[in-house]
Amino acid sequence: MSAAAFSGAKALITGGLGFIGSNLARRLVGAGAKVTLIDSLIPEYGGNPFNVQDIRDRVSVSITDVRDPHAMAHLVQGQDYLFNLAGQTSHLDSMSNPMTDLEINAAAQLSILEACRQHSPKVKLVFASTRQLYGRPRYLPVDEKHPASPVDVNGINKLAGEQYHLLYNDVYGLRACCLRLTNTYGPAMRVKDARQTFLGVWLRNAIQDKPILVYGDGSQLRDFNYVDDAVDALLIAAADARADGKVFNLGSTEVVSLKALAELLLAVHGKGRFEVVSFPAERKAIDIGDYYSDFGKIRGELGWTPKVGLREGLERTLRYYAEHGARYWDPA
Amino acid sequence: MSAAAFSGAKALITGGLGFIGSNLARRLVGAGAKVTLIDSLIPEYGGNPFNVQDIRDRVSVSITDVRDPHAMAHLVQGQDYLFNLAGQTSHLDSMSNPMTDLEINAAAQLSILEACRQHSPKVKLVFASTRQLYGRPRYLPVDEKHPASPVDVNGINKLAGEQYHLLYNDVYGLRACCLRLTNTYGPAMRVKDARQTFLGVWLRNAIQDKPILVYGDGSQLRDFNYVDDAVDALLIAAADARADGKVFNLGSTEVVSLKALAELLLAVHGKGRFEVVSFPAERKAIDIGDYYSDFGKIRGELGWTPKVGLREGLERTLRYYAEHGARYWDPA
Repeated sequence: MSAAAFSGAKALITGGLGFIGSNLARRLVGAGAKVTLIDSLIPEYGGNPFNVQDIRDRVSVSITDVRDPHAMAHLVQGQDYLFNLAGQTSHLDSMSNPMTDLEINAAAQLSILEACRQHSPKVKLVFASTRQLYGRPRYLPVDEKHPASPVDVNGINKLAGEQYHLLYNDVYGLRACCLRLTNTYGPAMRVKDARQTFLGVWLRNAIQDKPILVYGDGSQLRDFNYVDDAVDALLIAAADARADGKVFNLGSTEVVSLKALAELLLAVHGKGRFEVVSFPAERKAIDIGDYYSDFGKIRGELGWTPKVGLREGLERTLRYYAEHGARYWDPA
Repeated sequence: MSAAAFSGAKALITGGLGFIGSNLARRLVGAGAKVTLIDSLIPEYGGNPFNVQDIRDRVSVSITDVRDPHAMAHLVQGQDYLFNLAGQTSHLDSMSNPMTDLEINAAAQLSILEACRQHSPKVKLVFASTRQLYGRPRYLPVDEKHPASPVDVNGINKLAGEQYHLLYNDVYGLRACCLRLTNTYGPAMRVKDARQTFLGVWLRNAIQDKPILVYGDGSQLRDFNYVDDAVDALLIAAADARADGKVFNLGSTEVVSLKALAELLLAVHGKGRFEVVSFPAERKAIDIGDYYSDFGKIRGELGWTPKVGLREGLERTLRYYAEHGARYWDPA
């Protein structure tokens, strides 16, 4: 990815105090972009001001809920890039509070696109979508042609959010593309619970000398991206016009079972234990079984590949939380 | 379809004063059901009290907007069947007012399902979906496995509405199924404009001795269902547990070009003329090209086939509007 595309450019990040948003902000600041972060700081979501403490003087921060159409209409103006990362990510919360998930993951997306169409038609949007919309894979690895059969409200609404972006690209020429992220992990991830990813809780438990709980029989396969690789993909997709109007899977060639992942995490950590326990009923109902993606499309068309291996990524992440963990499970 | 399933049963129809809803209500009343109709009577939509004038004493009518969650929570209670027909149907309006389309076609559906889950878990839901969610066909005829690639906001939101129904069936055991209707026509259709179907305006123009406007080059292929056949499908899907959790296309073996349809309509009418004119830009942007469906799944699994041919259906419809037209283009 060429940093030149972002030098002096104005970039807006929704969910900018969150896990991926804050890592992206740091990279954009380094590339010379003028960065504005939007975050609602809803306690159940990923925003944490500590995530940008080191770059706080070099970014603008607006504590704004993306459901506020008037605020958004103002904030999108004059931007060159809009990284659309704000979302409700918890699958369980999407079932217990489906309307909130709809408001944030579908309705707010539509109103952001309307704001851009009316007030910022030259902005380039990159929408952070999710592999969750595929539902239970009918074949593996899952490519972008796999049918979308979401198994929870979150997957349905994220699919709608994605489709609005593609539609506005096609009908209005508002440049937009979508990345379907798989499990992303790394420094700044939410670790106080499993609302963002189960791996956050695993990491916290490892550091706090608590057992890691592996649901099911531990054989479920997953792929993981270290956050720096996900940020690479967001920047590449933003800078490359060939991405416009398209959807791309992220993914990894390292596919591991949850049991193998737990073993690797504890090996890297040097201690700890895990327990294989049966699924809680509410998780079983929306579990997707094995998943790993075919990311050949973004590799072939945009040249993205993940660079950080799972072991190295886990090492870096453990090191981060060993040092800063208290700012996450007990925010100052 | 066995009328026995509905004798003495309680049936709720959203959009009950509309085109398909009113025809369905008449049939259910005839089968001995206790029928409640919900309609918002929003002027741009399909509701028209005249549609149920002949059965007005035999149905309950509630002028309710499906976006009102409290009203819906009350109305769904004690129902055996919920025919979920209320919708924003205009593709153009979905583009000019996308949030309203989202509220009615997606958000209200989710809140109706939540109301049923909490207050009426034994109800059977049939959701009227649309072929619009397929977008521009990648192959013909279009079966249910065809990817959903909506080309307008309406298609995106109807897809979400459909997926909520299937999800609540799968996760909560709330019995629900979806029918993807194609162009439906017949007595009680909206004819004052093209918000429900272009064929309504064609019929009105034919009766009012105005030219019929055929957009494009007139070669676009379409399939049509007479409303009695669509009602058959709704009743069959409601009564048959094998439909639960599934999606079915409706359709017809009579596939015609728009030009051939105009010629047939005028031949049946015995007079009039049509003009082939280029697409208005806002329609061209969301046009889907040729479409006709493969309805082998509902034929094979539930035994539904359309029975009313296009010529006969057009005759019946023309006759209806020749007599009652003034109640539609100039409501009393």
